Amino acid sequence: MKIDVCFSPLLYPRYHDPESIVVVTDIFRATTSIVTAFQNGVQSIRPVATVEEARAYKEKGWLVGAERNVRRCDFADFGNSPFDYTPEKVSGRDIVFTTTNGTKAITIARDAYQVVIGAFINLQAVADYCLSYQRDVVVLASGWEDKVNIEDTLYGGALTETLVATGKYQLATDAARITQEMWTTHKNNVRAYLKPTDHYARLLANHLEGSIDYCLSLSLTPKVPQLQVQDDVLLLK
Amino acid sequence: MKIDVCFSPLLYPRYHDPESIVVVTDIFRATTSIVTAFQNGVQSIRPVATVEEARAYKEKGWLVGAERNVRRCDFADFGNSPFDYTPEKVSGRDIVFTTTNGTKAITIARDAYQVVIGAFINLQAVADYCLSYQRDVVVLASGWEDKVNIEDTLYGGALTETLVATGKYQLATDAARITQEMWTTHKNNVRAYLKPTDHYARLLANHLEGSIDYCLSLSLTPKVPQLQVQDDVLLLK
Repeated sequence: MKIDVCFSPLLYPRYHDPESIVVVTDIFRATTSIVTAFQNGVQSIRPVATVEEARAYKEKGWLVGAERNVRRCDFADFGNSPFDYTPEKVSGRDIVFTTTNGTKAITIARDAYQVVIGAFINLQAVADYCLSYQRDVVVLASGWEDKVNIEDTLYGGALTETLVATGKYQLATDAARITQEMWTTHKNNVRAYLKPTDHYARLLANHLEGSIDYCLSLSLTPKVPQLQVQDDVLLLK
Repeated sequence: MKIDVCFSPLLYPRYHDPESIVVVTDIFRATTSIVTAFQNGVQSIRPVATVEEARAYKEKGWLVGAERNVRRCDFADFGNSPFDYTPEKVSGRDIVFTTTNGTKAITIARDAYQVVIGAFINLQAVADYCLSYQRDVVVLASGWEDKVNIEDTLYGGALTETLVATGKYQLATDAARITQEMWTTHKNNVRAYLKPTDHYARLLANHLEGSIDYCLSLSLTPKVPQLQVQDDVLLLK
């Protein structure tokens, strides 16, 4: 099997394969928060693309997570910090969720064979999931407003290296090769590697650095949220 | 000033800035061939997007370079090898040129402040050109059918490192940071770095490895071809 890494949602049409598993990632912090919510017992998450949709759900009584430009939207119950999604708040609940970049990437990949949510905190679980299906894999990096970022491509490299190390996966293209080297070079000092990057600065400027170490922790949970599309509504379960 | 690297023509709309200089690159081999043609005295090159346009020019008596999937089109005078563009053939002439990826990237960037043609063989000349204009720079990597490739992003890293080393340029985004590290890590052994990559294999499979060392040679020429748009016709001079 082959693994590839798509560096931006804008590029996804070129990497789309209806027979592949797509692993959507947005390390800081949408997909880390989604995986955390499932670890803490959430029943389902409905990703929506716009703040307006999220607000409409809120007015209908839903629990809503909504973030733009790293800050929680004022009407929302949760922002984009994984620490917002505590067992007390989310266990057994259905949540609506929108973020600057992550939920858009999930929407774009909806026609893949299977879409799952990847983060460093479920790295091994996602690798095991891919191995169990024996299918080609595309990691879709959410990026920042469609531009390439380091933390999401680095996660692509981590999953690439994990799957290639099994001997069952090969690099599909140069894109996977670039990220694999990013990971093997920096895996023992990821925080230092990320310190000069764009989004790290953005989190620091907004006093949100508290969740960085958590977002970079490896394989804390066996949860692999999967996308279901029912009557044109997207649902993570 | 800032330098950024756009990993694919598909991403260019997000990196476009009408005040920036765009450096289009397609190392294997369109932009290396274009720069070589100017070094060998060509008067102008008219980049066209399609084989049909190139064929129409040929029928009107023009000298035409045309390549698809690394092979010369049968009607064309030149393919995509820089060795085709000898002084005997091109000196003082006007040429029409189309390639799989490179000419498309030139067309996409046409509304930038200035579009120039970059390759390893004019690396220092392009850096000096950017420094003389004192403007932000975006390297546009042509990639392969809009997918990310290593050789073009590596060139982005080489130009990034050259400009940042002057103390006058800073990294615009993570994308430039990724390529800068690719270059600083591999600059002393570029051929070995490229050996397992997609396009290297494609060139070898077509017995076109002869031009690889030339395409990877640094700063052989002071020529910096510039795009002019006159009456909606693109012209490199």
